[in-house]
Amino acid sequence: MSDYTVRRYKKGGDSYTLGTTLTIELLKKRPQAVIIVYLHSSLSGDGGEEIVKLCKSNSIPFETNNKVFNLLSQKENCYAIGVFKPFSCKLDHTQDHMVLVNPSNTGNLGTIMRSMCGFGIKNLAIISPAVDAFDPKTVRSSMGAIFDINLVYYDTFEDYIKETEDRSLYPFMLQAKYSLSDFKFTHPASLIMGNESSGLPRNFLEVGTPIIIKHSNEIDSLNITIAASIGLYELSKDRFNK
Amino acid sequence: MSDYTVRRYKKGGDSYTLGTTLTIELLKKRPQAVIIVYLHSSLSGDGGEEIVKLCKSNSIPFETNNKVFNLLSQKENCYAIGVFKPFSCKLDHTQDHMVLVNPSNTGNLGTIMRSMCGFGIKNLAIISPAVDAFDPKTVRSSMGAIFDINLVYYDTFEDYIKETEDRSLYPFMLQAKYSLSDFKFTHPASLIMGNESSGLPRNFLEVGTPIIIKHSNEIDSLNITIAASIGLYELSKDRFNK
Repeated sequence: MSDYTVRRYKKGGDSYTLGTTLTIELLKKRPQAVIIVYLHSSLSGDGGEEIVKLCKSNSIPFETNNKVFNLLSQKENCYAIGVFKPFSCKLDHTQDHMVLVNPSNTGNLGTIMRSMCGFGIKNLAIISPAVDAFDPKTVRSSMGAIFDINLVYYDTFEDYIKETEDRSLYPFMLQAKYSLSDFKFTHPASLIMGNESSGLPRNFLEVGTPIIIKHSNEIDSLNITIAASIGLYELSKDRFNK
Repeated sequence: MSDYTVRRYKKGGDSYTLGTTLTIELLKKRPQAVIIVYLHSSLSGDGGEEIVKLCKSNSIPFETNNKVFNLLSQKENCYAIGVFKPFSCKLDHTQDHMVLVNPSNTGNLGTIMRSMCGFGIKNLAIISPAVDAFDPKTVRSSMGAIFDINLVYYDTFEDYIKETEDRSLYPFMLQAKYSLSDFKFTHPASLIMGNESSGLPRNFLEVGTPIIIKHSNEIDSLNITIAASIGLYELSKDRFNK
């Protein structure tokens, strides 16, 4: 038995993947962050074999330990858990970025990461205060995309801007003049999205080129994951249409 | 006091809106479906006044009754509940449709309804087995969009097709040949989306013109709400860009 002490996730502490597929993603994409892998005695089949193989080839400890599952997982069909240290990243400033200002929901953050991976945008700046990217709920809803992107938190939007140079900034705002659907982006671009309920503060109208996704006035706004994903889709469509 | 007996939602029974904004949407869009409105004694401000006005002008009974909130709402900040009968609709066959084959998640279904309203697509066919559109969780996540669209359940996709004529069918599938981003739709169109985990069955490749939203192979697929909303965005963008 390992002498690692398992604890339920608290912000700043070690996080974990709940489930076989997610644990395999972790082991493939961020093996150096993994502390230990727990297997349930009911685990069987290819998934279990792949996990053991990945642990061995990366010298990661693993053990069968059902008690850990009672502590960390609410779901019955979870048979693998990968414990990992939150990792630190650097943004690649030659590439397009997604910038989320004060996101407040773990599910939304994970879903946006998944769309980012889908559309090949791999750099994410998060402006605080913001939800915790390493919360196991975010990790789960990202479906492993979190292990594939560079994510960096900034205290303020100004701190992010200071680090960047020569990039085009596109805040997504209902008050914007330019419509997404007939717009040509300049790369490297930063798509900037506001908080789920309040959107971006009005002063972002002075930042770069504000963009609107036009929609009917029968809804107040699109869901943030929808708006972000439509932005990512438009930003990257030339690349995928070759 | 009314003699209506309040019950927690069960499929097929009366449904309800939890919250002031949602209840106002219900009263504005589907007043004829409303049975009774409950107000919490802590309700104050413009929302309460608007609800009372809408109830009076539509001869809908309303009463202050805190017990109902304990029974139906888990949230502390819910101060208005509108009880309504699930309403039946007819699809408008001269218009574009969204077709969801076996959707399984209330939150996803509600979010897709909200995107439909946002992009002006107001007709929704749902193929069973499927999640319940009138579940209060669907109603809530639609943010009232459910009161603005025509929604009809069909036992099979064939039953839906039998009812339609002269429309273009576009199943969204990973195996499809045509890419969404350089595609021109013919109206009236039906966008057809599969189940959250399994997608559309392969035989939909023989139905109309299958479409793919191209993305990187680092994710298996886009989230269904994202795929559906990007489809709706492309289908309607000419309309909103005038």
